[in-house]
Amino acid sequence: MKKTLASDNYSGTTPEIIEAIAKANGAHQGSYGADESTDTAVAMFKKMFREDIDVYFTMNGTGANVTALSSVCPSYGAVICSSVAHINVDECGAPEKFGGFKLLTVEKENGKLTPEDIAPFMVNLGEQHWSQPKVISITQATEYGTVYTCAEIKAIADYAHENGLLLHVDGARISNAAVSLGVSFKEMLLDTGVDFVSFGGTKNGLMFGEAVIFFNTAISENYKYVRKQGMQLLSKMRFISAQFEALFGTDLWERNAKHANKMAQKLASGLSKVAGVKITQEVKANGVFAIMPKEIIPALQEQSPFYVWDEQTHEVRLMCSFDTAEEEINAFLVKLDSLLLELA
Amino acid sequence: MKKTLASDNYSGTTPEIIEAIAKANGAHQGSYGADESTDTAVAMFKKMFREDIDVYFTMNGTGANVTALSSVCPSYGAVICSSVAHINVDECGAPEKFGGFKLLTVEKENGKLTPEDIAPFMVNLGEQHWSQPKVISITQATEYGTVYTCAEIKAIADYAHENGLLLHVDGARISNAAVSLGVSFKEMLLDTGVDFVSFGGTKNGLMFGEAVIFFNTAISENYKYVRKQGMQLLSKMRFISAQFEALFGTDLWERNAKHANKMAQKLASGLSKVAGVKITQEVKANGVFAIMPKEIIPALQEQSPFYVWDEQTHEVRLMCSFDTAEEEINAFLVKLDSLLLELA
Amino acid sequence: MKKTLASDNYSGTTPEIIEAIAKANGAHQGSYGADESTDTAVAMFKKMFREDIDVYFTMNGTGANVTALSSVCPSYGAVICSSVAHINVDECGAPEKFGGFKLLTVEKENGKLTPEDIAPFMVNLGEQHWSQPKVISITQATEYGTVYTCAEIKAIADYAHENGLLLHVDGARISNAAVSLGVSFKEMLLDTGVDFVSFGGTKNGLMFGEAVIFFNTAISENYKYVRKQGMQLLSKMRFISAQFEALFGTDLWERNAKHANKMAQKLASGLSKVAGVKITQEVKANGVFAIMPKEIIPALQEQSPFYVWDEQTHEVRLMCSFDTAEEEINAFLVKLDSLLLELA
Amino acid sequence: MKKTLASDNYSGTTPEIIEAIAKANGAHQGSYGADESTDTAVAMFKKMFREDIDVYFTMNGTGANVTALSSVCPSYGAVICSSVAHINVDECGAPEKFGGFKLLTVEKENGKLTPEDIAPFMVNLGEQHWSQPKVISITQATEYGTVYTCAEIKAIADYAHENGLLLHVDGARISNAAVSLGVSFKEMLLDTGVDFVSFGGTKNGLMFGEAVIFFNTAISENYKYVRKQGMQLLSKMRFISAQFEALFGTDLWERNAKHANKMAQKLASGLSKVAGVKITQEVKANGVFAIMPKEIIPALQEQSPFYVWDEQTHEVRLMCSFDTAEEEINAFLVKLDSLLLELA
Repeated sequence: MKKTLASDNYSGTTPEIIEAIAKANGAHQGSYGADESTDTAVAMFKKMFREDIDVYFTMNGTGANVTALSSVCPSYGAVICSSVAHINVDECGAPEKFGGFKLLTVEKENGKLTPEDIAPFMVNLGEQHWSQPKVISITQATEYGTVYTCAEIKAIADYAHENGLLLHVDGARISNAAVSLGVSFKEMLLDTGVDFVSFGGTKNGLMFGEAVIFFNTAISENYKYVRKQGMQLLSKMRFISAQFEALFGTDLWERNAKHANKMAQKLASGLSKVAGVKITQEVKANGVFAIMPKEIIPALQEQSPFYVWDEQTHEVRLMCSFDTAEEEINAFLVKLDSLLLELA
Repeated sequence: MKKTLASDNYSGTTPEIIEAIAKANGAHQGSYGADESTDTAVAMFKKMFREDIDVYFTMNGTGANVTALSSVCPSYGAVICSSVAHINVDECGAPEKFGGFKLLTVEKENGKLTPEDIAPFMVNLGEQHWSQPKVISITQATEYGTVYTCAEIKAIADYAHENGLLLHVDGARISNAAVSLGVSFKEMLLDTGVDFVSFGGTKNGLMFGEAVIFFNTAISENYKYVRKQGMQLLSKMRFISAQFEALFGTDLWERNAKHANKMAQKLASGLSKVAGVKITQEVKANGVFAIMPKEIIPALQEQSPFYVWDEQTHEVRLMCSFDTAEEEINAFLVKLDSLLLELA
Repeated sequence: MKKTLASDNYSGTTPEIIEAIAKANGAHQGSYGADESTDTAVAMFKKMFREDIDVYFTMNGTGANVTALSSVCPSYGAVICSSVAHINVDECGAPEKFGGFKLLTVEKENGKLTPEDIAPFMVNLGEQHWSQPKVISITQATEYGTVYTCAEIKAIADYAHENGLLLHVDGARISNAAVSLGVSFKEMLLDTGVDFVSFGGTKNGLMFGEAVIFFNTAISENYKYVRKQGMQLLSKMRFISAQFEALFGTDLWERNAKHANKMAQKLASGLSKVAGVKITQEVKANGVFAIMPKEIIPALQEQSPFYVWDEQTHEVRLMCSFDTAEEEINAFLVKLDSLLLELA
Repeated sequence: MKKTLASDNYSGTTPEIIEAIAKANGAHQGSYGADESTDTAVAMFKKMFREDIDVYFTMNGTGANVTALSSVCPSYGAVICSSVAHINVDECGAPEKFGGFKLLTVEKENGKLTPEDIAPFMVNLGEQHWSQPKVISITQATEYGTVYTCAEIKAIADYAHENGLLLHVDGARISNAAVSLGVSFKEMLLDTGVDFVSFGGTKNGLMFGEAVIFFNTAISENYKYVRKQGMQLLSKMRFISAQFEALFGTDLWERNAKHANKMAQKLASGLSKVAGVKITQEVKANGVFAIMPKEIIPALQEQSPFYVWDEQTHEVRLMCSFDTAEEEINAFLVKLDSLLLELA
């Protein structure tokens, strides 16, 4: 299949990752994480953040989110999140099924929660009839391609802690957010007060694999059992760990994310000059949301496949990846122009 | 770490698998299974068995077992299995948690169920107070390294179908069983009447990945949702499919499994000549179970790490893998001899 | 405690119910429903509706709703309901915990769903990432005291069946709805095409007990196991059945419900004449919703306790019961007048 | 139906209980436990044990057991119990479904666990692959009609606490045990170190209702939410509480249990004199287990219905209740004699 703007998981992986896997192969290693690659990758994250954190690897993003949240939120609890959060709309009810808890959702145009959005849920505390709010889960970068500033994250973390809640970050696109903000992961996550994060690998170029990192180690004690029971423990763990080492132990994560974001900027810049197309969200990471005439969408999808986000408004989602080429963006914009011309 | 006899997942993968992954990389592909590698791998299994089957890939063995069983067994149902079944003792209660059903277990010395073992559970049918038997799950090769013959599988399948039950096979070591019996997968699974199988990849040399195959397509309709909700759906699915294609689309599966089994035979043959060591299970696949003097175990584990299966009886489990070398077996036997000599 | 307008479960039961219980006592009876009272009560419902229905008794309303819905909706399914539905806001996440499914909620001012409200959820059908809509659950009478007409129920049932969905009715106040509409239960539920109903007893004067009735007997086969596993099976079942027989085998249900509704009408009529109080919902059953000045609420609650429904708007909920006395309504209105006078 | 020896829940209730219910009726009371009867019943239990306990009422025994255990045992945990425990064989998998945890079962001829029975499960602690033992659950009196002495309970409690486990008692027949031992509930439960108990009402003469009592109040904090989510919270709670008050606030519990136990003794005494009948369990509470010739069972069941416990061995279970009459026991024994005579 040719390159697409469909999803950052339509791309494969980078040669560095395959090399890392090949290198991790060979000798026998303890299974389920008792291997050298895992030791190294965990040490790398400890160096990135601080010694006193707990790092676990999972197989996919749904697994990271659901096991992490379920390990700290009781079934009678509730997780507050955006209505477009991946955990709410893209995981086939896995949080409800595995965690048993309720998702309390906020509709926000830009997908970014604020303490004001959360406050209305802080009612009926201690009342046995109501699911009790326990966790706030935000997505960074959001499903709309917007990005929380560190100050915005800190404000939510502060609110959470003042109200007895924990703050979780779904960081499927955490690298895109970091390069967008120009801050370190530590500044964005640890210094702001985040309690735990689903630290994404796949969407920034891994074959597969995510990390669940607990900065708040008071809540991580039982995670290993939940990960196992949640079917997220890989036997030959080294093959995830080695990928993480290759991605975050070098500047590969930054190169990948910067490139994806840059392509999104280029695309947005091009779209902004086109009459009849309206960009609907601030382009801060690797996704561009735009409304365009319904009639041209099928032909444009033939040029570069992408998804329609909202059938009613003809809003489309255009995702860039570490391997999106400038030529594709150019060709896409040219095609768009010609389709609009035909339409006129 | 040097080579071990600890587990067939202490080994890594083979160069062919890494090449296959590298080859599957590159272009954009649809995610979540809508890719060329997955099409090819599914077609390969259809050719292996028959057109009318349903094939799904999962990330690990626990995930394959638990999602497969949960997709057909209601929470008020029960799954009948061996007391040493992986689903009963090695999955941290994932079947109970995710499926909600009860495991009814049979203690059998060789780990192999028979219709006679299952019959006592066929009581209180239709009674609302009792979990209703719905599925028999057998492991092939068993956790004890024994192997069901095709006739034995067929007898269980017939019993299952006569009694309104389904037959599931946990085939984490299905390749080892096939080469042990000298039969095709089709003869062992489809022709005997198995309804669905967790078709193992990892323990026979994949980096990761298992397949869930439904021969009984009347029960597979909803599996895709259960797989997703069970957090077992990989986004970049091609990286599992390509591995399966490389393993089972060539004779690699057979070479790997034959070698592992051959090493187990060599090891068993050596052990059988050693006074003071008693082999406790028929050696049919890649594992050897033996009782040996407690005193020598720690020093022998230094030679080649392995697990003690039963602390009370000093029964040990020695697992061979596709990459176990003859020299290791020889060295292990030599060390054993010398340790026993010291002890005498 | 004096009489209140707090909830229709603040009232106790009627003498007839206690007599019925006393009468059912005495001899030995089969447990778990194998008793004469249960036979009689089931026959009564079959006569009320038709022979081919399935009737089960549960202990409370949450139990009726959650076990009924869970018995037909798979964990990867979704139940579409009003955002103020009891299953969404008053059951501490029991539907998510026990059923594992997702609730898809509609915000409607009057709490009544229409096919148009449901249509937007009928997307992504067959897509593995999304919870699949399976059931529509409406509340009759609604949590707002409004009532669906038979035509409105039929429209939803038709929409449901055209779209492969089932229609469930949470009938905690089903008697109040029936007398409000002046129709039989059969006309309201069976003739409109409802698939299954949580047929309420407690809120219309039982000590405890609800019935789950399946008109669509194609979906009830496994309910008995789900009821047991859902901890809703009473051992001395006769003590629920006998209550149902006493309530619905005479005109007691009608007297109770008519009285409660009449008191609500009287209250609404009084309130409608009071400047400064605004009735916010059509008063069709036994509840009255009204906005009143915040300052008078505490003193008015001393007269007759009631709940504030919305702290922001000072909307209060005033619930009448089978035992609400006219004098209370009069005294409440007098007190309201005097409080408003003081305020002015 | 005439009186039976089938089950202690084939009997109804006592007049005192119905009077108590009638007395609790009338005025409005807060729902869900905020009522005077509940205050009184809780105070009664506090007086019985000590001030610092937590008392909750549930609707049935399965509900008491499952919600209590689930509130303290995580899904990755395990509950150790007898293989004939009600939670293992009579609750249709409700513990696994609702709690998600694993039951680790001990086969014991007399149904009574000892620390020695439990010790073998205390392995693989801290290992992520294995369900972690968290609770020991014993039944008092046991399902076999045997009774733990206080010293035996204390031994298990001590073992539990030394090993980081909690001790739960399924006390469906706790009154029968107390009168059998001639000790107070406090001596049997609190002084021995039990952490929490399902304190039975139904089998000793209530219409319905059980209590969950936490002596260890460090573990009860979240129970109220679990009870609600477990669908065990009655709205008109007074109707359970008033029953408890009537049963345990007078000597009714003692009269009921003493009578049932006495009838069992009378029955056992009679059976022990009959050649061809073998009593299989010590008769300590209200149940008698005996093996008798298969041929006479159907005719004997016509005299007084009872259950066959083991179809293979013709072991039958004869349960006495608070309302079992001496004449019935006599008639049963006479009939038995005549049937054996015919057989000879």
